[in-house]
Amino acid sequence: MFAEAPRLSRIHPSPSSVAAAKARELKQAGVHVLDLTVGEPDFDTPDNIKQAAIAAIERGDTKYTAVNGTPALRAAIIARLAHRTGVTYTDAEVTVGSGAKHVIFTALMATLAPGDEVVIPAPYWVSYPDMVLVNDGVPVVVPCPMSDDFKLTPARLRAALTGKTRWLILNVPSNPTGAVYTADELVGLAEVLEDFPAVDVLTDEIYDEVYLGKSGGCVSLVQAAPQLKDRVLLVNGVSKTYAMTGWRVGYCAGPAPIIAAMNKLQSHMTSCPSSISQAAAVEALTGDQSFVSASVEQYRARRDALVAGLAAIDGLQPVPGDGAFYVFVNCEGVIGRHTPDGTLIASDDDFVNYLLDSVHVGTITGSAYGLSPFFRVSFATSEETLAAAVQAISSAVDQLRK
Amino acid sequence: MFAEAPRLSRIHPSPSSVAAAKARELKQAGVHVLDLTVGEPDFDTPDNIKQAAIAAIERGDTKYTAVNGTPALRAAIIARLAHRTGVTYTDAEVTVGSGAKHVIFTALMATLAPGDEVVIPAPYWVSYPDMVLVNDGVPVVVPCPMSDDFKLTPARLRAALTGKTRWLILNVPSNPTGAVYTADELVGLAEVLEDFPAVDVLTDEIYDEVYLGKSGGCVSLVQAAPQLKDRVLLVNGVSKTYAMTGWRVGYCAGPAPIIAAMNKLQSHMTSCPSSISQAAAVEALTGDQSFVSASVEQYRARRDALVAGLAAIDGLQPVPGDGAFYVFVNCEGVIGRHTPDGTLIASDDDFVNYLLDSVHVGTITGSAYGLSPFFRVSFATSEETLAAAVQAISSAVDQLRK
Repeated sequence: MFAEAPRLSRIHPSPSSVAAAKARELKQAGVHVLDLTVGEPDFDTPDNIKQAAIAAIERGDTKYTAVNGTPALRAAIIARLAHRTGVTYTDAEVTVGSGAKHVIFTALMATLAPGDEVVIPAPYWVSYPDMVLVNDGVPVVVPCPMSDDFKLTPARLRAALTGKTRWLILNVPSNPTGAVYTADELVGLAEVLEDFPAVDVLTDEIYDEVYLGKSGGCVSLVQAAPQLKDRVLLVNGVSKTYAMTGWRVGYCAGPAPIIAAMNKLQSHMTSCPSSISQAAAVEALTGDQSFVSASVEQYRARRDALVAGLAAIDGLQPVPGDGAFYVFVNCEGVIGRHTPDGTLIASDDDFVNYLLDSVHVGTITGSAYGLSPFFRVSFATSEETLAAAVQAISSAVDQLRK
Repeated sequence: MFAEAPRLSRIHPSPSSVAAAKARELKQAGVHVLDLTVGEPDFDTPDNIKQAAIAAIERGDTKYTAVNGTPALRAAIIARLAHRTGVTYTDAEVTVGSGAKHVIFTALMATLAPGDEVVIPAPYWVSYPDMVLVNDGVPVVVPCPMSDDFKLTPARLRAALTGKTRWLILNVPSNPTGAVYTADELVGLAEVLEDFPAVDVLTDEIYDEVYLGKSGGCVSLVQAAPQLKDRVLLVNGVSKTYAMTGWRVGYCAGPAPIIAAMNKLQSHMTSCPSSISQAAAVEALTGDQSFVSASVEQYRARRDALVAGLAAIDGLQPVPGDGAFYVFVNCEGVIGRHTPDGTLIASDDDFVNYLLDSVHVGTITGSAYGLSPFFRVSFATSEETLAAAVQAISSAVDQLRK
């Protein structure tokens, strides 16, 4: 009897959710999994944030809030963005959602007409194309090869834009590559965008504070090209920076008419994020920030160790980025080899499955991100797990026959 | 430049959100508003639930959960439903969302093909038609007059069903009328549904524990007609029963393929509800239940006082229901009268605006619920506010010229 909606048939369950669930099932079955699929910090939420949430619970902040969030949270977001980007947003230019994922989903649902094109540089975060498809849009995937550091170039952007383009999605730092655009690179993209005034830009900056470069920090498109402010929807949240994935608070800033459309949709979709989580997010954005630099220092050390370990494995080439907590690893060198039982490793999917089955290391295949042959490893996990995983991957590769 | 998506142009912001926001703005401007627009308990979340949330925060339950909720929450939902309805659901037949509103939205988005019809008895909860419209469906509104106690009859249901009907939405107890269907009435509807095997039923039972009748309790459709189990999506949540509106946890149980489709969509939409709120919901569903009966006793007393007060006002006819915390009031008797400044009261909209402007009593117009001339008053507020509101409404009506 049941047939899912046609829009649902266009999409698949989130590959990262599926990979995480697969690793979780193995663990529940008693297998010791070295899980590098995780898309969340292994750190606990900082104590000052927890205490703010507990205080909110105790004082009875347990009621519906406004659809666009509490006044305190909106003020905190505006202050944060002014500090980070130098751009001042008004109250009508910000809103909140139940995680940055939800904010992006709402923005696309509120704006995409059937057939509208959305330019998505690949490798991309797994949900972008499916979010576009389920909302009747057309993802226009632009492969950005390793030789370009996985970044969109002005020439590739220009070639992808058409009269039907509604959005360009830029994810900086990138999940899965960690790629960060310099201000000059953003200016180069902005120059192309000036020739296409009907195109808006959704910048997903959820990893902006997880900056692992040697100096400076992540630059936002609105900072590099402030003239685009009325065409940029800047999306962020507290999940990654403050180890708050479970709290589900995201936010965005952008043109007031888009924000109003999102609020209209949200009033029928979720009402508002958890009132307790909103109180926690206020403390995250306005309270003590020492957790951020301390965690970034740890991520940096882990990345360096992980990259060194993986680089020493014959056939693998890790490509470290300057942000987020992932390394995208080129596995072209192991394609064509055979497992001990004679199975051909014909793709990154095959290699990722082989790692999970043979040495119980969980990773996510590059095909999920639209670029093969690669796989993503997360270093949002302990040094011990990372070291053991490198050793296990090395031993698994050793057992492949060329 | 910006044009919202065509799907967004079909809908309006939630009228109850708008009415609540209007009352909130007046209050912030220093006006003493007697606010009967509220759709949430005035009670604080019970302490045992708060303590469970605090414990979850302290032990670090601050990470992503599975898309379909924590195993503990799913188990609690299954146990609750078995206890309430006698129907046993499997783990694959339940899922969670960020509030019951979100659960309903996800269910419709996951199942509606363009042009699919959804039968909605009126008066209806404000968001149903817009949720259908934004997801490309066609709301088929079936007026259910006061003479039928605002309930859908088998004859009206049969007349509304077509080959294009995908869903019937039943809200029991009803927001805004509080109407509760008896088991016999549900059996009567089920008999009609047996002739239309392609139609599924979404039962929104968010007020099921707020039962104000003299004996018995709310009966669920799956209880009255268990043969329909594989065609019923039972929606509920913790918001109303446990004064947990701000926590944003809803759930549903129904056919595994629909649940799977909803999970697929949710994996790209919100990931999961707040992990802390989920822990709180487990305690709500499995812990001490004394709050429920104590709050229901208070609601019952308030309803009786409110109804008596309103019934004494010339031109108004409150129509008490047996559930939820609202009274739907017939205001036909004041239509055609004039305000002191000579303005004609031509509709329930006019009367509701007059009450807000003249005596600062906030209510919601019947037209928002698809049935005029009525207005909804909430008694999820203090006895003092209710008494003052009745007096203010009475004085406002006294000043109308016939």
